[in-house]
Amino acid sequence: MAVNLDGRSPTRDSALDQAMMPERRIIIGQISPTVGQGRYAVKRCVGDELTVEADIFTDGHAQLAAQLALCCRGNRAWQHVPMEPIGNDRWRAKTALPDIGIWQFRVEAWLDVFGGFVRDTAKKREAELPLTLDAEEGRLLIAQAASFGADTARRALNAILDGFDSLSLEDRIALLLAPETRNAMQAAVSRPHMTISYAQTVDVERRRAGFASWYEIFPRSQSSYPGRHGTLRDVIAQLPRIRGMGFDVLYLTPIHPIGLTNRKGRNNALEAATGDVGSPYAIGAAQGGHDAIHPELGTLEDFRALVAAAGEHGLELALDIAVQMSPDHPWLTAHPHWFPRRPDGSIKYAENPPKKYEDIVNPDFYADPQLWTALRDVFLYWIEQGVRIFRVDNPHTKPMPFWEWLISDIRARHSDVIFLAEAFTRPKPMYQLARIGFSQSYTYFTWRNSKRELTEYLTELSTTEVRDFFRPHFFVNTPDINPPFLQSGGRPAFLIRAALAATMSGLWGLYSGFEICESEPLPAREEYKDSEKYQLRQRDFDAPDNIGKQIAQLNALRAREPALQSHLGITFYTAFNDNILYYAKTAQGRSDRILVAVNLDPHNAQGCDFEIPLWEWKLSDNETLVVEDLLHGDKFTWTGKIQHLHLTPDAPYAIWRVQPLDGAA
Amino acid sequence: MAVNLDGRSPTRDSALDQAMMPERRIIIGQISPTVGQGRYAVKRCVGDELTVEADIFTDGHAQLAAQLALCCRGNRAWQHVPMEPIGNDRWRAKTALPDIGIWQFRVEAWLDVFGGFVRDTAKKREAELPLTLDAEEGRLLIAQAASFGADTARRALNAILDGFDSLSLEDRIALLLAPETRNAMQAAVSRPHMTISYAQTVDVERRRAGFASWYEIFPRSQSSYPGRHGTLRDVIAQLPRIRGMGFDVLYLTPIHPIGLTNRKGRNNALEAATGDVGSPYAIGAAQGGHDAIHPELGTLEDFRALVAAAGEHGLELALDIAVQMSPDHPWLTAHPHWFPRRPDGSIKYAENPPKKYEDIVNPDFYADPQLWTALRDVFLYWIEQGVRIFRVDNPHTKPMPFWEWLISDIRARHSDVIFLAEAFTRPKPMYQLARIGFSQSYTYFTWRNSKRELTEYLTELSTTEVRDFFRPHFFVNTPDINPPFLQSGGRPAFLIRAALAATMSGLWGLYSGFEICESEPLPAREEYKDSEKYQLRQRDFDAPDNIGKQIAQLNALRAREPALQSHLGITFYTAFNDNILYYAKTAQGRSDRILVAVNLDPHNAQGCDFEIPLWEWKLSDNETLVVEDLLHGDKFTWTGKIQHLHLTPDAPYAIWRVQPLDGAA
Repeated sequence: MAVNLDGRSPTRDSALDQAMMPERRIIIGQISPTVGQGRYAVKRCVGDELTVEADIFTDGHAQLAAQLALCCRGNRAWQHVPMEPIGNDRWRAKTALPDIGIWQFRVEAWLDVFGGFVRDTAKKREAELPLTLDAEEGRLLIAQAASFGADTARRALNAILDGFDSLSLEDRIALLLAPETRNAMQAAVSRPHMTISYAQTVDVERRRAGFASWYEIFPRSQSSYPGRHGTLRDVIAQLPRIRGMGFDVLYLTPIHPIGLTNRKGRNNALEAATGDVGSPYAIGAAQGGHDAIHPELGTLEDFRALVAAAGEHGLELALDIAVQMSPDHPWLTAHPHWFPRRPDGSIKYAENPPKKYEDIVNPDFYADPQLWTALRDVFLYWIEQGVRIFRVDNPHTKPMPFWEWLISDIRARHSDVIFLAEAFTRPKPMYQLARIGFSQSYTYFTWRNSKRELTEYLTELSTTEVRDFFRPHFFVNTPDINPPFLQSGGRPAFLIRAALAATMSGLWGLYSGFEICESEPLPAREEYKDSEKYQLRQRDFDAPDNIGKQIAQLNALRAREPALQSHLGITFYTAFNDNILYYAKTAQGRSDRILVAVNLDPHNAQGCDFEIPLWEWKLSDNETLVVEDLLHGDKFTWTGKIQHLHLTPDAPYAIWRVQPLDGAA
Repeated sequence: MAVNLDGRSPTRDSALDQAMMPERRIIIGQISPTVGQGRYAVKRCVGDELTVEADIFTDGHAQLAAQLALCCRGNRAWQHVPMEPIGNDRWRAKTALPDIGIWQFRVEAWLDVFGGFVRDTAKKREAELPLTLDAEEGRLLIAQAASFGADTARRALNAILDGFDSLSLEDRIALLLAPETRNAMQAAVSRPHMTISYAQTVDVERRRAGFASWYEIFPRSQSSYPGRHGTLRDVIAQLPRIRGMGFDVLYLTPIHPIGLTNRKGRNNALEAATGDVGSPYAIGAAQGGHDAIHPELGTLEDFRALVAAAGEHGLELALDIAVQMSPDHPWLTAHPHWFPRRPDGSIKYAENPPKKYEDIVNPDFYADPQLWTALRDVFLYWIEQGVRIFRVDNPHTKPMPFWEWLISDIRARHSDVIFLAEAFTRPKPMYQLARIGFSQSYTYFTWRNSKRELTEYLTELSTTEVRDFFRPHFFVNTPDINPPFLQSGGRPAFLIRAALAATMSGLWGLYSGFEICESEPLPAREEYKDSEKYQLRQRDFDAPDNIGKQIAQLNALRAREPALQSHLGITFYTAFNDNILYYAKTAQGRSDRILVAVNLDPHNAQGCDFEIPLWEWKLSDNETLVVEDLLHGDKFTWTGKIQHLHLTPDAPYAIWRVQPLDGAA
């Protein structure tokens, strides 16, 4: 009766053959987390819980089953975690990530024929419909499953079938619907229409990739004798002070020999005066390049001593790698073809017209693969000396595929290496560097000051797709950024910015001098006057009004409170004053919340009513929260949704832990 | 000087080789429109403008160029449209889609080396920097481009170089920066780091796929003699009346022979009484199956006559295809293995436990590829008889890959065929059917009554990713859905729902009887009493209170106003009354707007202040719009942002065209 107008033999229709493949029947979509549909890695830290969700559905009323399959590089076995439906065709599974390394997961789904039989038969039993044929259908499903597959599973199924026919109909149905029967069937291998999603990589890094407090110095300024060039040994003397403020990463600006040709003078003068030390970013001189140490700083032995001493003080070193060369860098003569030249044969300096950077040259990344391996080997060299954290200068001006290859190559050898991208560029390249492998990134935080700006920025970072691959590092200042807010706000501004960075982000950092509220700029610029980039500077860290104690308290709180160890889990609540930013941080699996209120106005005291988030524990508006003031240690209660706060410029923030009266909800 | 710790030869590192491939340097992402990253087609109608956007960026300050490449199936040539940056690394191009068929586009980007040279040199000239070397660099770029590629391009470049060296420096720079030079270089073939995105398919259908007004009938009820079984010839007699209301698609419920075994009686009774006509969805009897016509309706010749007559009246026929068989369908004996059986050999009826459908059986779609081709051939058969629109019954209960294959197979032969999915199911399968090829879909519109529900639903349909592949068909009622709002709201409810459907969606439809406000339900059900699904029903369409005139007016407006021919381009504005829904529709490329206000309360008059959207033309709050009342023809002006409206149950909607005084903005 079938009409076949064109007489094609259906078995020779390859589109039809493809369409009928069993794995196309079930749709698995909208996998979360994912980065570029599996093209890039999701980022997590070791010990994090991974929650995977996906849309899973098929045609009709068939019952589905699904699982999360997970494996770690170097481990041949896939682990499986059942996924559960959570409504609207969405399924979820949770799992731990116990090891550092590259993981992959995929979502697998299939028709749960026996599960559907159980569901339907239970409904029919309830409706008192005849069930004789259903009992036989159930028996046949089990017999079919018992006819192949693993021995254990077959034995369990055969045990169920044993004597089945001699049972009453009621008992046969009861046996078919028993959870034990269901489990035995699930252990059998038959999974019709099995469908497997793409594999999503998860890059599981050590915790310091996501939670750390950085302190940045120019080693050459660390001498305790004013005017004398500091050494790596001088840095060792500073370790107790820095660790005393609670920092755990000590970041050194470049330590390599500095070029003489076109060396910059103080305050970025085009010509250096006699004795000017030049910019440590003009890397390379007769004494060596990226794998050498500036002789005035000391020797490789001194460097190793610093690594060891820092470790003893609970500080880990981070090195600054800037891929650019002074005209005196040894590579210019050893590998002249790596560097572009002008028609007259002169070297092509770095430029961003009309600006020109005469003390550095950039290599041509597509000139020679050996340039890439040589740069990779620079990292490997410092890893060999004990460094595991690298801050990369301006990565956005080098090809993205270079970094993707380099980071992957290095982390395959040393999975504990952390890369921080200093990419002050447009949002899309900034995020792309995170996708291709940078563990962390500098951000726009330094320029986000108002309540609206901070709320929007943190919401973007913590709730959009970037949350799964971009770890923001909130530096409050850098040698390049002396923010207007600090220039004009005095000591309260430093307290405000420290509190914001330290409580909002798992990663924060400061550049030496911040703790004594240093902010003198070049006129109308964001640059520091007499910048250490071009000269030595020694500081009196005991200067009055220093905020070292407050920084130490913030870092101590961070160490104690998991909620303060990530930028995720932030929620903004209502404070009825545009100068007061008020938010909560919540740690995965915790029922208490850390509340933070910050007066964003460095010049005036500000007060306001604010809402305590009773609704988060489903409490009504007149109920009570137990409060612990984490700055002063007091404990008390708040009853009623509206409370009042008052913050002065000298004490511009409050931090509380809150939870319901009964302690858990 | 390069450190190579492991002695690997870099040229043998395949990851490095891959990373250095030129096409990896530029990132093309977030292409819009896209459906499943190119896995499914974007839907458009012929004549639509296609706007393509993408994030395009690379490292550093290099200048990029990009283009949209577009081709149509059956046409070997790609067309190219330049893309322009629109800020934040986003690029855009627009193009027309002049032909029905399957199109593909991709985004192509490359380093525009000469463009970067022009940009930088212009900046340097402005800063009065020395330019001798730059002039030579420019000359070399042109000479290099002139050394290969198409003759025309080379000739143009050589003409520029001719006598170049004898010009003054100033003239050489001027020549290098001249737009003509730029154009000649763009025509040359060198496109370093050329990168090409994935291909996105665009399914361009005829306009009726997106804009049509449907009228649904049971042909057997069309006799003008009460109680007599209607025929296809009787349907011809109804064409003037239906076309008179402005409908352009006439949709017939199934016209095939109806099974006798387990035939349903009136009001879905389990047993049919003598003379009961049964459900036309119990398809197949001794007289034939899906490719036969129920003998009481007439012959194939009658059917062809109906197709022709409908066409003469400006109506196109739509057929209802339900893939299910009565136990008497010829396929059950011709292809017994297509149908599942129970352990006792009896046929397995369709069921959704504890419900059972004894008058139909469902085939097993994975039993035999011949079932798929036979079903495909059913569509081809009716296409042969002149049908180009199919409404598919319950497609979500058949495998998605089946529909994807079938629709693709048929539209490759007949690109003008339109498929409407009757998938009243959960949101994700409903949307998935649209992704895999259905031109249109039934929706949840019937159950969206309040201002909030309608606003949220239309916002989802018109602003989220579904806008690019899901065309909502707003039926106000169907033989299966007698909505509570119509049951309780009387005639005003029918006017309200007709106005909402006809103005919100490009596709709307009604089931015969709506125009005389029929709504008597089975008690406490959404089913019609004495449903035509199980018996003949003849109606008096001249009944008092019929709303045929209003429907005709709405359809006439739709035909005239492009803004009413799609659900896209809808914006909800503020009316200060929760019973009044107030929105604008805007057509692509038009500066006027259609404003619609609907009183959602069928029982009471409602009035309120409302805002006229002066801001859409950047007018201030006290300026003036010219208004045309599209229902009554009056023209007047509104001055000031706040106006007042009043809508009675008998005239529950207003439709205006508005534009600024000067007629264009």
